[in-house]
Amino acid sequence: MATDLLIRNARPLGGPATDLLIRSGRIVERATGLSAPGVPIEDAGGKLVLPGLVEAHTHLDKTLLGMGWHPHGAGPRIIDKIDHERALKGPLDIDPARQSARQALQSVGFGTTHIRTHLDIDTDYGLWAVEGIAATRERLRPVVDIDRVAFPQSGLLRRPGTLELMDRALAMGVEVVGGLDPCAIDRDPKGHLDAVFALSQKHGRPIDIHLHEPGEMGAFSLELIFERIRALGLRGQVTVSHAFCLGAPDRDLVDPLIAQLAELDVAIMTTGPASRPAPPVARLLAAGIRVCSGSDGIRDTWSPYGNGDMLERAMLVGLRNNFRRDEDVELAFHTCTRGGADAMRIAGYGLEPGCAADLVIVPGETVTDAVVSRPTDRVVVKRGVVVARGGVCTVVAP
Amino acid sequence: MATDLLIRNARPLGGPATDLLIRSGRIVERATGLSAPGVPIEDAGGKLVLPGLVEAHTHLDKTLLGMGWHPHGAGPRIIDKIDHERALKGPLDIDPARQSARQALQSVGFGTTHIRTHLDIDTDYGLWAVEGIAATRERLRPVVDIDRVAFPQSGLLRRPGTLELMDRALAMGVEVVGGLDPCAIDRDPKGHLDAVFALSQKHGRPIDIHLHEPGEMGAFSLELIFERIRALGLRGQVTVSHAFCLGAPDRDLVDPLIAQLAELDVAIMTTGPASRPAPPVARLLAAGIRVCSGSDGIRDTWSPYGNGDMLERAMLVGLRNNFRRDEDVELAFHTCTRGGADAMRIAGYGLEPGCAADLVIVPGETVTDAVVSRPTDRVVVKRGVVVARGGVCTVVAP
Repeated sequence: MATDLLIRNARPLGGPATDLLIRSGRIVERATGLSAPGVPIEDAGGKLVLPGLVEAHTHLDKTLLGMGWHPHGAGPRIIDKIDHERALKGPLDIDPARQSARQALQSVGFGTTHIRTHLDIDTDYGLWAVEGIAATRERLRPVVDIDRVAFPQSGLLRRPGTLELMDRALAMGVEVVGGLDPCAIDRDPKGHLDAVFALSQKHGRPIDIHLHEPGEMGAFSLELIFERIRALGLRGQVTVSHAFCLGAPDRDLVDPLIAQLAELDVAIMTTGPASRPAPPVARLLAAGIRVCSGSDGIRDTWSPYGNGDMLERAMLVGLRNNFRRDEDVELAFHTCTRGGADAMRIAGYGLEPGCAADLVIVPGETVTDAVVSRPTDRVVVKRGVVVARGGVCTVVAP
Repeated sequence: MATDLLIRNARPLGGPATDLLIRSGRIVERATGLSAPGVPIEDAGGKLVLPGLVEAHTHLDKTLLGMGWHPHGAGPRIIDKIDHERALKGPLDIDPARQSARQALQSVGFGTTHIRTHLDIDTDYGLWAVEGIAATRERLRPVVDIDRVAFPQSGLLRRPGTLELMDRALAMGVEVVGGLDPCAIDRDPKGHLDAVFALSQKHGRPIDIHLHEPGEMGAFSLELIFERIRALGLRGQVTVSHAFCLGAPDRDLVDPLIAQLAELDVAIMTTGPASRPAPPVARLLAAGIRVCSGSDGIRDTWSPYGNGDMLERAMLVGLRNNFRRDEDVELAFHTCTRGGADAMRIAGYGLEPGCAADLVIVPGETVTDAVVSRPTDRVVVKRGVVVARGGVCTVVAP
């Protein structure tokens, strides 16, 4: 596949128009009036060029996209949604291979070039998600990079056998160790976190923990996480997803947590949830903390919402954080682009010469304009190859 | 203009497919297999048909749509945004006639058939907005109904002369008396509310008050509003917009307010704000209170967000209220359709025979599907006439 491309007349992040020359999938030159005989040309017509959008937290294995409308009937608690989903997954045939490809391709159409997905691992379905995603990951390698988290969605200790399945998933190459609400779901914060960190140590993998626990309970779990990072020397190796406890109104509770996140280089993932306390994005970034964003589940049994558009996600993060000034909306955009690359340690990310040519061309005047307008007429480039136009990907969904 | 139309194979609110026969702008029959020789046919192809979307709170006069990107630089307080906007309105030439037409037509493209707009009235710009909107309202009468609120955006008492301008606007026919934060902006809750209610009494007009005041301050202003409704016999004549105080976590504060809203038939407008306390939509509806929604300002000097799509607004109200089950998401949809009609007292609203043929045809399986998917491929009918397809209106924006 040709991985050379000359992009003409594009405005990087809304700056002055320029050309970008891509060779062997990397940006090699960025200047006006470039020419490169024989290299295919993509005329951006003065549109914005943005680095590839980064979906840093989703659940590709369990979307219902393309399966017809399924009414949402789960109860209000997280454990209700967990049990409801596990009961339906087999009967509805929510096949991880098929479903992950559908969602990933929809995301690529919106300009996403990197995805981190949490894969359900439990004693009812074993490694179904791990195997399904392995197929999708291989098949979609030309259009999107998929990073996987082994995720004990139904609890790690409360359902014996799960820990062994997690261990097997990591042995099979899954890149990240996941965890979930050490107090609220497993009811054993010490046991849960000791197990998660032991898996990390054994396999030499980073950690990404779901932490929905609010207020003092979440702060307690965070403290236990900090203790283990210090004891094991895992600075910079941990991401905490959701972290609703950081949205508590009590600054005396939250500020020391923020200071420790910075000290231990813990990344935070937020979806910008409208109905839950949310991590204060501007304060976290000002403290030097890596902050990324994600769609979380899209059209699954937990929730009907979501479409995988990380520009729309930036809008939702902006609305949640009351970002109105352009420089503030750009913080929300940051969480959906470079912030994701920082959290996921993506090498060579950006629009500078030397970076991988993962990018998206979008109509708009400024980055903030793109976030609030979210035009769908996008051109998506992965490693120098145009992989989607107007939402339609070169790879066809199953 | 032909106001007869036969809509074939449409699913009202996701129900079984049927035909709708429209004569003289009204739905006269709803059944399968209808025929009406000579009447134009619109084949809905099994798509949803929804009643026209209702934008119950916006500011048509001051959007920047179509004026190029304007960076957002206002300070954090409401009064900062008020003063910033007033300072820019003339220099930027935010012409209410031109701008209101642009926004209203964009809304029509999304399926909005009724709009309530608040018109800035202040001593710097006088009745510029009232005059501008009068032109738009006449021009767009075939495609959308526009209901106006005389709105003292810069305060009613703190800038002498404003009250007289409000009186003149109402004498010119503006339908509703507006108000704004009696404590926080005018710093004289008794004086402000006495003046608003006096205008209502003098002109025989209903009231729609912006109330951003949170917590106990907002509750105090609400109590003062209730006292005047009781004293003047204005039950059912008042809408309170925003009402952040109803989102306070203290049920002992909020529940008595909800009881009085129900007793006095006060309508509530909420945008589903992600970064502010928000009225609890399900609890209000369960108490029998009329609840509507709106975009508030779209792409103006206050905020870059918004596009006028009331299906997207329903999504935002749903996200804010943590509505996930279909029947809950339908409550959010209700606030953007019938809830708006109830609040604005729109006669003949709905999809039943006898109702005005104001409706929108949208791809989707269910109402909740339409809310979360927000497809843009819509057909909009106003009084029996197709006025927009795929976002493009039969009337061209200035």
